[in-house]
Amino acid sequence: MSKIVQTPRPPYYAVIFTSLRKEGDHGYAEMSRRVLKELQGQPGFLGYEGARQDIGVTVSYWESLAAIRAWKENPVHREAQQAYDDWYADSRIRVCKVERDDS
Amino acid sequence: MSKIVQTPRPPYYAVIFTSLRKEGDHGYAEMSRRVLKELQGQPGFLGYEGARQDIGVTVSYWESLAAIRAWKENPVHREAQQAYDDWYADSRIRVCKVERDDS
Repeated sequence: MSKIVQTPRPPYYAVIFTSLRKEGDHGYAEMSRRVLKELQGQPGFLGYEGARQDIGVTVSYWESLAAIRAWKENPVHREAQQAYDDWYADSRIRVCKVERDDS
Repeated sequence: MSKIVQTPRPPYYAVIFTSLRKEGDHGYAEMSRRVLKELQGQPGFLGYEGARQDIGVTVSYWESLAAIRAWKENPVHREAQQAYDDWYADSRIRVCKVERDDS
């Protein structure tokens, strides 16, 4: 069961990853499991929310920009990044500072 | 066909809306159509990406915080906001400054 991430009081950071998939798996499902497992142990990681219909929209939340940089260099994540062209027809990564939380 | 929004060079703003639906429609589908139509004409609106599986994750992009405030006061949007308790078991709105675009 998915939940809304209980993030702390702002400011903190969000990485919005949006993507359009190509046809076929090409190792995507297995790598997704590995990446999500790795993410759980990553320092500064606050949580993750995501869904895919026509487009995939996933948001990961982070304590700091340094934590986001470190995740970008994580070996499992790097391995995944190298396969993006196999999986995605288009994708975009936006790094954001969460300034306000209206819930 | 969904597309990834062609946002301008940062900085610009993103509103991340995540939600868990309740059972039943309760006017949701029709209001979604009205809100999305209204959004298209809203000053400062740059585009919208969204998907729902277990959780709904939608991101709208904006030129400025002032444009986000004006959208919050839009009459159709206000009408929708008043029905959130009918539609959502839980929801969160995060207002973010997009600082970097890595695509």
